[in-house]
Amino acid sequence: MNVLIVFAHPEPRSFGRALLDRGVATLREAGHEVVVSDLYAMEFNPVAGAGDFTERRFPDALQYDREQKHASAHHAFSPDIQAEIDKLQACDMLILQFPLWWFSMPAIMKGWVDRVFVNGLVYGSGRRFDSGGMKGKRAMAAITTACYPEMVEADGLLAHLDINLWHLQHGTLGYAGFDVLHPFTAWSIHYTTPEKRAAYLDAYAQRLRGIAEETPMPAHRLAEFGSDWRLKPGIAPRTVGHRRVAQAQE
Amino acid sequence: MNVLIVFAHPEPRSFGRALLDRGVATLREAGHEVVVSDLYAMEFNPVAGAGDFTERRFPDALQYDREQKHASAHHAFSPDIQAEIDKLQACDMLILQFPLWWFSMPAIMKGWVDRVFVNGLVYGSGRRFDSGGMKGKRAMAAITTACYPEMVEADGLLAHLDINLWHLQHGTLGYAGFDVLHPFTAWSIHYTTPEKRAAYLDAYAQRLRGIAEETPMPAHRLAEFGSDWRLKPGIAPRTVGHRRVAQAQE
Repeated sequence: MNVLIVFAHPEPRSFGRALLDRGVATLREAGHEVVVSDLYAMEFNPVAGAGDFTERRFPDALQYDREQKHASAHHAFSPDIQAEIDKLQACDMLILQFPLWWFSMPAIMKGWVDRVFVNGLVYGSGRRFDSGGMKGKRAMAAITTACYPEMVEADGLLAHLDINLWHLQHGTLGYAGFDVLHPFTAWSIHYTTPEKRAAYLDAYAQRLRGIAEETPMPAHRLAEFGSDWRLKPGIAPRTVGHRRVAQAQE
Repeated sequence: MNVLIVFAHPEPRSFGRALLDRGVATLREAGHEVVVSDLYAMEFNPVAGAGDFTERRFPDALQYDREQKHASAHHAFSPDIQAEIDKLQACDMLILQFPLWWFSMPAIMKGWVDRVFVNGLVYGSGRRFDSGGMKGKRAMAAITTACYPEMVEADGLLAHLDINLWHLQHGTLGYAGFDVLHPFTAWSIHYTTPEKRAAYLDAYAQRLRGIAEETPMPAHRLAEFGSDWRLKPGIAPRTVGHRRVAQAQE
């Protein structure tokens, strides 16, 4: 596979960086091609704006997604965006690796999504979920976090991890058409031992060796929804944070 | 009340801007003080990094949240962050107004949260949820979106809006200690009529006139969780996207 790793961490001596390096080495040893977008090192601009387009369809007022659609058809993206689009289109698998900040991506990575997941290529004009522009590719979030796994169980302080990551795993990666794998998570990194950190690196390497064959998370097909955007009668919704659902049923 | 509106939209002639202006006017007419952080106009830097601190506790390697804690105790934030912290501490209510991009905030606003919701004032050392630094204040997301309401029903294409916004409303605003109000949402703004847009402005104004008395969304208290971070026996979890849960039970 061609694997694109998008990485966001402000500190090169972080555990996150060690995890990145181990991931890259492991994937290359397994015969994959790996490209890394190290957003902090690139000083990637995360702020979507008028400067993202080299020509405009609606010059009077910026309608960002409509200009994305126009730029997709006319190769009119700024060079920094086009370079990332090229990497995205060339990849078979996307890994987003980041420290979990406020239960989502750091802003520099959110801006990579805002600017690179463009209307007209990734989504739009019927492209979404199993018709999404990224159909046939896999994606995974690889996360480091200060929180404990018990906190993101169904009855945990923060509710299930699925729910916290829904906007990313379903609303972003799934929407774009990726087959989304279960996230890799290294927990409570601030409060752990060097041995435990080493074990996380090993677990990540182990996970990545089988990543091309891993079964993605379940997802609905577009055909399961009616013209009213609701699941057709008789189709049970995919559960979200399933243990929470199960508990609520008790 | 003192109301802080944090606003992120790249286009001053947008519907989002009209909604902001109507909101400000309405709140002032009702006797509230209003401060606006217009992030695009301010060219707010959303990228958390070493430059955010005027002195460092751990100069060798950046541990962002630990430096936040140190800076909170030593008044060592960069001036752009300190200015926003001052607004946040002075407010009785926070409104985050933004176009919903990938089911979350635009990067420029995510970075406002990353850099301004600091360890040592907003969270950390036991500050969270009903012990959070923002306890006693209210917060609300005010959203414009291209999607349709049916898509974020429990059985909709995107799953319930509660689930999509969980990372923000529970994991960020709730975690910080705010009483979180139901979001205000203007739907399918691209595809609507001038009359419908005017009706959204009126609905927002109507909503804001009663905002000081509105009942917040339900939330667990910290005391309902055990030392294992799980709900104590006999306490039913707050439902998330309740119609989805109800459907799963049928």
